[in-house]
Amino acid sequence: MECFEVNILGCGSALPTTRHLATSQVVNLRDKLYMIDCGEATQVQMRRMRIKFSRLNHIFISHMHGDHCFGLPGLISTLGMLGRNGELVIHGPKETETYLRPILNTFCRELPYPIRFNHIAPDQHELIWEDRSVSVYSIPLKHRLPTSGFLFAEKAKEAHIIKEMTDFYQIPVRLLPSIKRGEDYITPEGERIPNGRLTRPASTPKKYAYCSDTAYYEKIIPIIEGVDLLYHEATFASEDAARAKETFHSTARQAAEIARKANVKRLVIGHYSARYEELHTLKKEADEIFPGTILADEGMTLTV
Amino acid sequence: MECFEVNILGCGSALPTTRHLATSQVVNLRDKLYMIDCGEATQVQMRRMRIKFSRLNHIFISHMHGDHCFGLPGLISTLGMLGRNGELVIHGPKETETYLRPILNTFCRELPYPIRFNHIAPDQHELIWEDRSVSVYSIPLKHRLPTSGFLFAEKAKEAHIIKEMTDFYQIPVRLLPSIKRGEDYITPEGERIPNGRLTRPASTPKKYAYCSDTAYYEKIIPIIEGVDLLYHEATFASEDAARAKETFHSTARQAAEIARKANVKRLVIGHYSARYEELHTLKKEADEIFPGTILADEGMTLTV
Repeated sequence: MECFEVNILGCGSALPTTRHLATSQVVNLRDKLYMIDCGEATQVQMRRMRIKFSRLNHIFISHMHGDHCFGLPGLISTLGMLGRNGELVIHGPKETETYLRPILNTFCRELPYPIRFNHIAPDQHELIWEDRSVSVYSIPLKHRLPTSGFLFAEKAKEAHIIKEMTDFYQIPVRLLPSIKRGEDYITPEGERIPNGRLTRPASTPKKYAYCSDTAYYEKIIPIIEGVDLLYHEATFASEDAARAKETFHSTARQAAEIARKANVKRLVIGHYSARYEELHTLKKEADEIFPGTILADEGMTLTV
Repeated sequence: MECFEVNILGCGSALPTTRHLATSQVVNLRDKLYMIDCGEATQVQMRRMRIKFSRLNHIFISHMHGDHCFGLPGLISTLGMLGRNGELVIHGPKETETYLRPILNTFCRELPYPIRFNHIAPDQHELIWEDRSVSVYSIPLKHRLPTSGFLFAEKAKEAHIIKEMTDFYQIPVRLLPSIKRGEDYITPEGERIPNGRLTRPASTPKKYAYCSDTAYYEKIIPIIEGVDLLYHEATFASEDAARAKETFHSTARQAAEIARKANVKRLVIGHYSARYEELHTLKKEADEIFPGTILADEGMTLTV
């Protein structure tokens, strides 16, 4: 699978409504799942959206507010009941472990799989996870308590072999991996066949940035510069800008401003305050600065 | 309001499915709300069912399994954000407080209302709460860890004054409360008017019993004898009776057996295992022993 997509499980703010749930997303990169935040009812949303529990190995927690992590105990228990045995890695501020340890000791004493905590420093922009498919970096945000966004940078994929050409030159199968990685082919006669004649380049690796919760914060711009998709919180409309400032949240206009200044390709906003019955105002405000802004919604899947 | 009803917020067992959520119920007695258990997503269900957060003052926790209490941190936070200032009482095994205290200290440091824990002894049948409307008793159950059911016994209501009669005898208003409580009236001439001529009796007080989670356990029968409505767990069908025994749960047949032996008026079953796609078998099994058994479902409201 070559897919790189973001599933929106919940995009409301702290007060759940009949319209929106607490924050959670699942990034699907080549069929490996990476969860970002895990508000209450996340596991219920996974069921509804038919997201495979067994493919989830990493959970990234942005900060220690309940609407971003109260779904963890239930999800962790469920993974155990489903017979998981592979390690689950939880990346987050060290308080994530402080919060979960006593709960695990009380409710999950017989968990059939190990949990590893990867403590991240929310005030640092650094590589926090890397595997064959992706590099994940922290993005220091500006909120009421230490908070980190996450940058998912897909790794370069191998080039595609042009079978007609490798057949034509009778290239031995054992050499194909090196051809995929970009090497030229030297024929038995010593002729050099440039790699460009043997392969089609893979698609350019994509980037997804998740920034929630945060006040308007220009320091993130160099980190998220040019990403293919940016999720930026937009808790408030501009008429509530004072409230946004007070609570270290952003308005839809500020989210769009960040997106525009960072030259991102697409912007999706979320983390809506419960006060807005409908979201036309947020959409209109953002569109004025970043046309085509997407309103996140529960159940939505975005291709990066 | 004279109502006494039970709202089913969730009636699944530990694994949530697309069909059922973790356990929670809200008893509405004369417009005061008493929650029983609080699985994950309970607050979301309250929103959906338009149950008023402000009328909830008591939460009863049956036992320390996650599917009965993982919704507490989110609900407690939400009550704070909604500006609650009245006391919330949480009745449950003492481990309920051990579980919640560190979470409250981390996530709810500025909660605008007090929480009081009423530690109950799950192995005792005793009065655990009493107010003008109701007496609530614990019901010792038989589960893998200390577990208590709850008996809600409505208090006797005052008789209804027959206005034509109190007008006829020109009974002073200050005496009406004593008439409502059942006293006779002595006229200025010394004639005794029997209370039965002045009032119509109030309806008989009702009883609701909640028994989940539990193995088949005949010791509860004298406690729940004759209740108007019994909720009894029925996690399994009889074909999975071995699994029921092993996990200290009941089959639908066993739930019906208890209901029949206790001469309850109506039976509602729930806490269904995720393994059952549909519930015809459970219903059929229970009906054979207790005809008219009700299958609990999310969003259902039952009048006691």
